[in-house]
Amino acid sequence: MSAIKLGIIGFGRIGKVHYENIKNNPAYDVTFICDINQEACSKESLPSSIDFVNDYTRVLSSDRVEAIMICTPTDLHPEIITAAAKAKKNIFCEKPIGFNMDEIMQAYTAVKENDVIFQLGFNRRFDEDFLAIHQTLKKVGDPHILKITSRDPEAPSMEYVKSSGGLFMDMAIHDFDMARYMMGEVTEVFVQGDALVNPDVANYNDIDTAIISLKFKNKALGVIDNSRQAVYGYDQRLEVFGNKGMLANANHTIANTVYSSDEGVVSEKPQYFFLERYQQSYATEMNYFANSIINGIPVACTIEDGIMAVKIAIAAKESFETGKPVAVYADLI
Amino acid sequence: MSAIKLGIIGFGRIGKVHYENIKNNPAYDVTFICDINQEACSKESLPSSIDFVNDYTRVLSSDRVEAIMICTPTDLHPEIITAAAKAKKNIFCEKPIGFNMDEIMQAYTAVKENDVIFQLGFNRRFDEDFLAIHQTLKKVGDPHILKITSRDPEAPSMEYVKSSGGLFMDMAIHDFDMARYMMGEVTEVFVQGDALVNPDVANYNDIDTAIISLKFKNKALGVIDNSRQAVYGYDQRLEVFGNKGMLANANHTIANTVYSSDEGVVSEKPQYFFLERYQQSYATEMNYFANSIINGIPVACTIEDGIMAVKIAIAAKESFETGKPVAVYADLI
Amino acid sequence: MSAIKLGIIGFGRIGKVHYENIKNNPAYDVTFICDINQEACSKESLPSSIDFVNDYTRVLSSDRVEAIMICTPTDLHPEIITAAAKAKKNIFCEKPIGFNMDEIMQAYTAVKENDVIFQLGFNRRFDEDFLAIHQTLKKVGDPHILKITSRDPEAPSMEYVKSSGGLFMDMAIHDFDMARYMMGEVTEVFVQGDALVNPDVANYNDIDTAIISLKFKNKALGVIDNSRQAVYGYDQRLEVFGNKGMLANANHTIANTVYSSDEGVVSEKPQYFFLERYQQSYATEMNYFANSIINGIPVACTIEDGIMAVKIAIAAKESFETGKPVAVYADLI
Amino acid sequence: MSAIKLGIIGFGRIGKVHYENIKNNPAYDVTFICDINQEACSKESLPSSIDFVNDYTRVLSSDRVEAIMICTPTDLHPEIITAAAKAKKNIFCEKPIGFNMDEIMQAYTAVKENDVIFQLGFNRRFDEDFLAIHQTLKKVGDPHILKITSRDPEAPSMEYVKSSGGLFMDMAIHDFDMARYMMGEVTEVFVQGDALVNPDVANYNDIDTAIISLKFKNKALGVIDNSRQAVYGYDQRLEVFGNKGMLANANHTIANTVYSSDEGVVSEKPQYFFLERYQQSYATEMNYFANSIINGIPVACTIEDGIMAVKIAIAAKESFETGKPVAVYADLI
Repeated sequence: MSAIKLGIIGFGRIGKVHYENIKNNPAYDVTFICDINQEACSKESLPSSIDFVNDYTRVLSSDRVEAIMICTPTDLHPEIITAAAKAKKNIFCEKPIGFNMDEIMQAYTAVKENDVIFQLGFNRRFDEDFLAIHQTLKKVGDPHILKITSRDPEAPSMEYVKSSGGLFMDMAIHDFDMARYMMGEVTEVFVQGDALVNPDVANYNDIDTAIISLKFKNKALGVIDNSRQAVYGYDQRLEVFGNKGMLANANHTIANTVYSSDEGVVSEKPQYFFLERYQQSYATEMNYFANSIINGIPVACTIEDGIMAVKIAIAAKESFETGKPVAVYADLI
Repeated sequence: MSAIKLGIIGFGRIGKVHYENIKNNPAYDVTFICDINQEACSKESLPSSIDFVNDYTRVLSSDRVEAIMICTPTDLHPEIITAAAKAKKNIFCEKPIGFNMDEIMQAYTAVKENDVIFQLGFNRRFDEDFLAIHQTLKKVGDPHILKITSRDPEAPSMEYVKSSGGLFMDMAIHDFDMARYMMGEVTEVFVQGDALVNPDVANYNDIDTAIISLKFKNKALGVIDNSRQAVYGYDQRLEVFGNKGMLANANHTIANTVYSSDEGVVSEKPQYFFLERYQQSYATEMNYFANSIINGIPVACTIEDGIMAVKIAIAAKESFETGKPVAVYADLI
Repeated sequence: MSAIKLGIIGFGRIGKVHYENIKNNPAYDVTFICDINQEACSKESLPSSIDFVNDYTRVLSSDRVEAIMICTPTDLHPEIITAAAKAKKNIFCEKPIGFNMDEIMQAYTAVKENDVIFQLGFNRRFDEDFLAIHQTLKKVGDPHILKITSRDPEAPSMEYVKSSGGLFMDMAIHDFDMARYMMGEVTEVFVQGDALVNPDVANYNDIDTAIISLKFKNKALGVIDNSRQAVYGYDQRLEVFGNKGMLANANHTIANTVYSSDEGVVSEKPQYFFLERYQQSYATEMNYFANSIINGIPVACTIEDGIMAVKIAIAAKESFETGKPVAVYADLI
Repeated sequence: MSAIKLGIIGFGRIGKVHYENIKNNPAYDVTFICDINQEACSKESLPSSIDFVNDYTRVLSSDRVEAIMICTPTDLHPEIITAAAKAKKNIFCEKPIGFNMDEIMQAYTAVKENDVIFQLGFNRRFDEDFLAIHQTLKKVGDPHILKITSRDPEAPSMEYVKSSGGLFMDMAIHDFDMARYMMGEVTEVFVQGDALVNPDVANYNDIDTAIISLKFKNKALGVIDNSRQAVYGYDQRLEVFGNKGMLANANHTIANTVYSSDEGVVSEKPQYFFLERYQQSYATEMNYFANSIINGIPVACTIEDGIMAVKIAIAAKESFETGKPVAVYADLI
């Protein structure tokens, strides 16, 4: 069985994270890296077996490519998905799947019509904690309450905020997917949000702090709390509560050391940010993708998952803007 | 300095809890106990210095009473407060202050006009954890997010549900007060709730599971999650998150023991319920009340606190019934 | 059933602790308090029903006394026990039972010959943590290792050190009893110790830091580590390890609060010292004593327990002085 | 700067662990793998750039080798070290350095005379927890007490026990090194040990459970407790206590999840064994070794460290056999 010939499209921060993980993964053979920025990498630092190009159509038209990984800015995702599906390439796409529902549905149609394998990059599904909770969900019995705390350690630059798609599409989208991963479909979303970390984000019609209430089709209730700045580090907690008990996780630290002195008992802060906290999950999701291509196991994070998360993000934005709860429907359109 | 001569009106479960706490408290001299139920206590089990009566007006008219403690069913609170204030007795009243805003405001007027000391029994304010968080709130900087988890270990009987005033007035009211204690005035409340533990409570127009979103005047956002049944025990957690950090507490156990075996690492469940978990707080709040009477320190939980919690409970109910967020105003009426 | 008429002999710190606990315990009626120091308490602060005397023989000769509690300096314990036993009074005696084995054995003989009930004050046996571990010891299977960490928060004054009997007799004696409580008889003790907190204690032939290795008759091995000064507070941990698992406890704090900031995650220090940490155990042990007197349940901490702890303390001292392991024999003499 | 050409001698379990770590480490270029067992690896599974041989002298005589890694059975270590040093190869050697002091000292002389770089494989020094504690040791002030708990999850086979060198040389040797790493030289060791997990190990003059007391030159006291079988998993804890506080670590788990039910609050067991728990440390120690060769930084775990650990192990064995404390001297020989 030979390695999957993979082309990486987009070679910024997250593209490089993926490359580092898969370059030593025997399931993959990276054949192309594409970035419009010629300086994205010095050709010399890559093995000569990899073609470095700046036009993604060259990746799609090569017969040295069986699958692609999309790591470009979000607004390009649907167009590249559509083209890749038509070129019969299997697709791994970073989150979110897109900003615009019309474009996203075009991409969806192309994926379905061409019957390619598509996995979306909601990497947290592949984290040891969340995998463990997901696999033992039955232990809580009928789920009643889902709580997700998701706080970044440091607010992004205004430059980033401008083109991020906003807190719901950029940050909370992970939590929307996690909520669906644990509970299934969302039926209603209500948001209270504000620019409390940095009032300037309001200039971009964005917020940095939110409490997002959710209703699920399974009747459970949920709440996500988001902040762009937790000074103690990346705060990633989840708890599922039901009639038979509660499953929850705790933050991770680099070392498990504790210092006791006359001033208190001091433990380590959580790991700094997503690259540290979710390092392993990025590698694991690529194993799942390979497993779907090679062994035909069902995709662990589907295109539908990608679309539903965007639909919740859009509803969340509407709720924030109107001050009212907004219904979410599980059918794609 | 002599002990405060105290009459207890209502001698059910909570009345007895208070009596056990204060009978050995040198600040108090219990002179009267009143209950309409002649069997509420066998006279013989009380010291002969205590008069046991079944008409509260006899307590109020006695000059052997300087202060009263109201532990009757809630619907009687306003009437007794009003009468006690007119009789110039200082008043400690169990939560909630009442169900009906008109009656409550009459009681309020009586208290103000007669200038008696009034403390409401939101005992959790006096718990070591919440006192410690309240006293060090500055450490979180500007508060951004408040989270309260408040789950009972066991659902009450339908008999209780019927006359409880409902989840908001009976159970969440403690959390509404705790939210105000930590953050100040609430300006908006939104509720998602359901009868998930026992669908029968819906027959009484009640729920047993809720996610309650709050906005505060100080711009912070908040969320309370309630359940009538946490099988692992009384779950009482709070966290305040701000631009300088987070303060949180954890549940309490009877013993701090841990068992490690091939099946996992097992710690104790939280203490069973409020009588265990908040035992000390009931004693502490009575020390504060005595301190206000004897030394004139400001009341730690005022009549206004009692009224505002009811206003939030009423708004929560409206939000649940209409499915919309409801504004809350900080002015009384 | 009437309350036990009790005389307290010795009214220093620990005598007062006991008095505060039992004055509201319906099982006891304190009839005498005895202290050679006339100022040990102002007579006025005690109820008139208590006789305050300065000669303990007056307590022993009174028919208003059924049981006595011995809270004097240790060197007086055996003499008072002997006299009390002869006077047919039941006896609760603070730890240690004595310094001198001949005197102790005289007291032992008197207790046995006069068939009075005798309980020794190793209060830690009655702490919630240690009770819980003791009651579930079977969970560890065959016990292999016992570890006790026992560190005081603050070194005592030189004045105290001088007459304390030394670290083994004054401080580690609690741990020797705890070791026996969990594991049964000790057969060998080996000590490495030093004056590391304050070299001055060496002037009194004492140490303030020790690692004490133990062998038990049940073949388990044990270790106690002691320090007179843990700047983070009273450190009281125990772990029992066996072929089926491990039982352990953790320190207790006043509040269960945690502060997370950019400097770390800070929990509370352990409770300050024994009066805080073991408060409840002092009350509980007196309930057990009453239960033995009134209901004839076996004594929970016997005179033999008191003697064996002293024998281990003497062996520990010998080990420290000789630098060699010392055998301990379970037969009394 | 070019990669270090490395020959691996001994390709059993630990040799393979190291190979997996360094095959993707740019600091190393593995040129030779040597094992007497022809089946140690199928040649095909190795890159063609690696020579697979079964005679270590072929590795030592090759100019395609700058450094060697010794992963053979312990009894061969000194001979290979000696030969490698004479061949001017830098040496990384697995623990322990040897069983026999004469042979070890010959190896030592060869290393010194030939001035090669030598690092011993006490990998735990490079674990995140122990690195963190070591780097912040000053926080405890003057160290008074060191405690190490080191328990394997599962007892080894009798086959293994037979040739293991015994508990002190095979298992506790890691703890002896850790003790020295934290506290410096040991001056006395006293052992209480037994075959409690499996009495059969006594047939091989070995034990499986031990309490090892230590004295250090810096006056601190220490204790190690070992068991060959902790049913809850690999137990690896350390605590350093001093006049300014305590540093400690806790066990690591795969996921940080907790399940609360009516039966208790269940956390995960510790990671299973050393390959899981110390995975990262094996990679890190090889970075240090490379750093010493390439950049001349002082070796992080020296040949003297290897020798002193063996000397303590020998003293421990003597103490166990004689039942007496045994002095340890810091000078080599």
